[in-house]
Amino acid sequence: MKTRAAVAFEAKKPLEIVELDLEGPKAGEVLVEIMATGICHTDAYTLDGFDSEGIFPSVLGHEGAGVVREVGPGVTSVKPGDHVIPLYTPECRQCKSCLSGKTNLCTAIRATQGKGLMPDGTSRFSYKGQTIYHYMGCSTFSNFTVLPEIAVAKIREDAPFETSCYIGCGVTTGVGAVVKTAKVEPGANVVVFGLGGIGLNVIQGAKMVGANKIIGVDINSSREEWGRKFGMTDFVDGRGKDRAAIIEEVIALTDGGADYSFDATGNTEVMRTALECCHRGWGTSIIIGVAEAGKEISTRPFQLVTGRNWRGTAFGGAKGRTDVPKIVDWYMDGKIAIDPMITHVLKLEEINKGFDLMHAGESIRSVVVY
Amino acid sequence: MKTRAAVAFEAKKPLEIVELDLEGPKAGEVLVEIMATGICHTDAYTLDGFDSEGIFPSVLGHEGAGVVREVGPGVTSVKPGDHVIPLYTPECRQCKSCLSGKTNLCTAIRATQGKGLMPDGTSRFSYKGQTIYHYMGCSTFSNFTVLPEIAVAKIREDAPFETSCYIGCGVTTGVGAVVKTAKVEPGANVVVFGLGGIGLNVIQGAKMVGANKIIGVDINSSREEWGRKFGMTDFVDGRGKDRAAIIEEVIALTDGGADYSFDATGNTEVMRTALECCHRGWGTSIIIGVAEAGKEISTRPFQLVTGRNWRGTAFGGAKGRTDVPKIVDWYMDGKIAIDPMITHVLKLEEINKGFDLMHAGESIRSVVVY
Repeated sequence: MKTRAAVAFEAKKPLEIVELDLEGPKAGEVLVEIMATGICHTDAYTLDGFDSEGIFPSVLGHEGAGVVREVGPGVTSVKPGDHVIPLYTPECRQCKSCLSGKTNLCTAIRATQGKGLMPDGTSRFSYKGQTIYHYMGCSTFSNFTVLPEIAVAKIREDAPFETSCYIGCGVTTGVGAVVKTAKVEPGANVVVFGLGGIGLNVIQGAKMVGANKIIGVDINSSREEWGRKFGMTDFVDGRGKDRAAIIEEVIALTDGGADYSFDATGNTEVMRTALECCHRGWGTSIIIGVAEAGKEISTRPFQLVTGRNWRGTAFGGAKGRTDVPKIVDWYMDGKIAIDPMITHVLKLEEINKGFDLMHAGESIRSVVVY
Repeated sequence: MKTRAAVAFEAKKPLEIVELDLEGPKAGEVLVEIMATGICHTDAYTLDGFDSEGIFPSVLGHEGAGVVREVGPGVTSVKPGDHVIPLYTPECRQCKSCLSGKTNLCTAIRATQGKGLMPDGTSRFSYKGQTIYHYMGCSTFSNFTVLPEIAVAKIREDAPFETSCYIGCGVTTGVGAVVKTAKVEPGANVVVFGLGGIGLNVIQGAKMVGANKIIGVDINSSREEWGRKFGMTDFVDGRGKDRAAIIEEVIALTDGGADYSFDATGNTEVMRTALECCHRGWGTSIIIGVAEAGKEISTRPFQLVTGRNWRGTAFGGAKGRTDVPKIVDWYMDGKIAIDPMITHVLKLEEINKGFDLMHAGESIRSVVVY
């Protein structure tokens, strides 16, 4: 079949809207009509050439929502007509990781996914006979895409595609970091570094679970208004302040330090500040942001010996097929908000504008609607 | 009163055995006759001038066992004749830390303890009219010492002083790191870096809780025999191997990485190896060793984002008054062994020899018996 898609033919070039050839689903695979997709920093990170493992030409996009149109042999968990969110972190429920009960990092299809291929080692996309690679196992910048059955979460049908697609990455990453990875308890003091889309979702996750102080830190003071909209109780303007000054402010606001801190900046210096502003004895700092290649985090070991915990999270620690439908419920029940975060709705032809808005810091989330 | 003590008059000089003046216990304090004391690397660290906060002249020693001889006004939890282990990490049961249920790092007397003083801001020791400072709130290199009531753990009277003193630091630090901080579960794969006294106690803690593989790593292959004596199942000779080689060996032995790793070396490069040999998704690395001043740990944030946890422990996460008596029970019940670790028993006059043995790597633990 044919599908309209925005293709990344090479790094550092705008996407091109073309018509691709798409093979139908093989055994254990499903064909999904993507109805809406967000444009995420990770797409830009790859497109801008920062990801040393980025593969081109490929169909980027990993934050979508759509409808199953066809299923391959052996598929039992979804059927044509089901509404789904594609999962870049699948959930096979059979690998060592899935069975451990300790992580969401399913390894079932990791090797092929990392190579831009389906689990059988081939691609479903091609353009004039040339292979076009998949991306993060999703490729939601194509109107139709093929995914392994274990990489789609079935969601309720009354959830709007244009907002629920954001649960495919940003919402789950931020809210999940609070709920699933950190397991923030009511009354805890929380600090969030970086008030972009992920940071705002951390804030609303912390609000949902009953955190006490929810402190946002950003070097862009215009983000304060955004933070307060989602439950931030205090703002620390980080502009021009060194690590010690920010730590001092957080300690003063929290009577000794944060119970939980989250880095949503990807800056390794900020990650250190986030750790060191945690409370002695138990404070836990969680790295969400993806750092530049080659950058390292560091601290004095004394910070850990005196009881701070340094951790990270991917996809918010959420198991895709199990937890994503619940987060959709939270959204539909009004426990979390998404609509105000969707600052721009674009057509596929305008997708490069979405990247420009993101680079300029002018969007929280741009969504392409097919 | 008078007490015989080994005094550190200044850094980098041998201890001197002298007779000190000792004031009796004030309100909330107890006088303890120390019957035996271990010589720990931390005493040497201070004596050798590496601790920038080291105070001289002082009575070092923090790993003792003895008998309460007198109590000051208001003391209710111990009485003369009680057998006790002094606690450099006290347990007031009233401060924010004690009440948190999340840490053993009681802050009740931290400020004065750090200055070498009792909680009222004065010292009980003097020599020819000159103030001699306390050390880690214990000063067990004195035959008699004064401690706050909250800094002694009452233990059973049938436990020998000469071995149970080791529970005052080394045993609890190693066993506690496994049981209290990491909470290692049966069947887990454990790796220990550094097979000195702490490392051996990590090994026997892991054995006690039913760990599966218990892997020891050391650059001194003569430690293999020591490790196997306490439950080590596999030995990795680290001599001449780089980080990648050691990680590869651990991954091969554990089908993907350690569930828990422990650094008992104090070397920040080893701390990194310990983290990175942990299993993706859930592996937890615990720093026990005290690093050189100014040294920092570092890693790529990707190590944490993919599910590894970096933590630390002090005094094995054990609450002194609550947990130390239990560890004495474990020893008396044969669940853990101490006797074979006490490689040298010395008189107070021979205490400098104990430091020499430790520096030469010829002792696991030297104990001074009064």
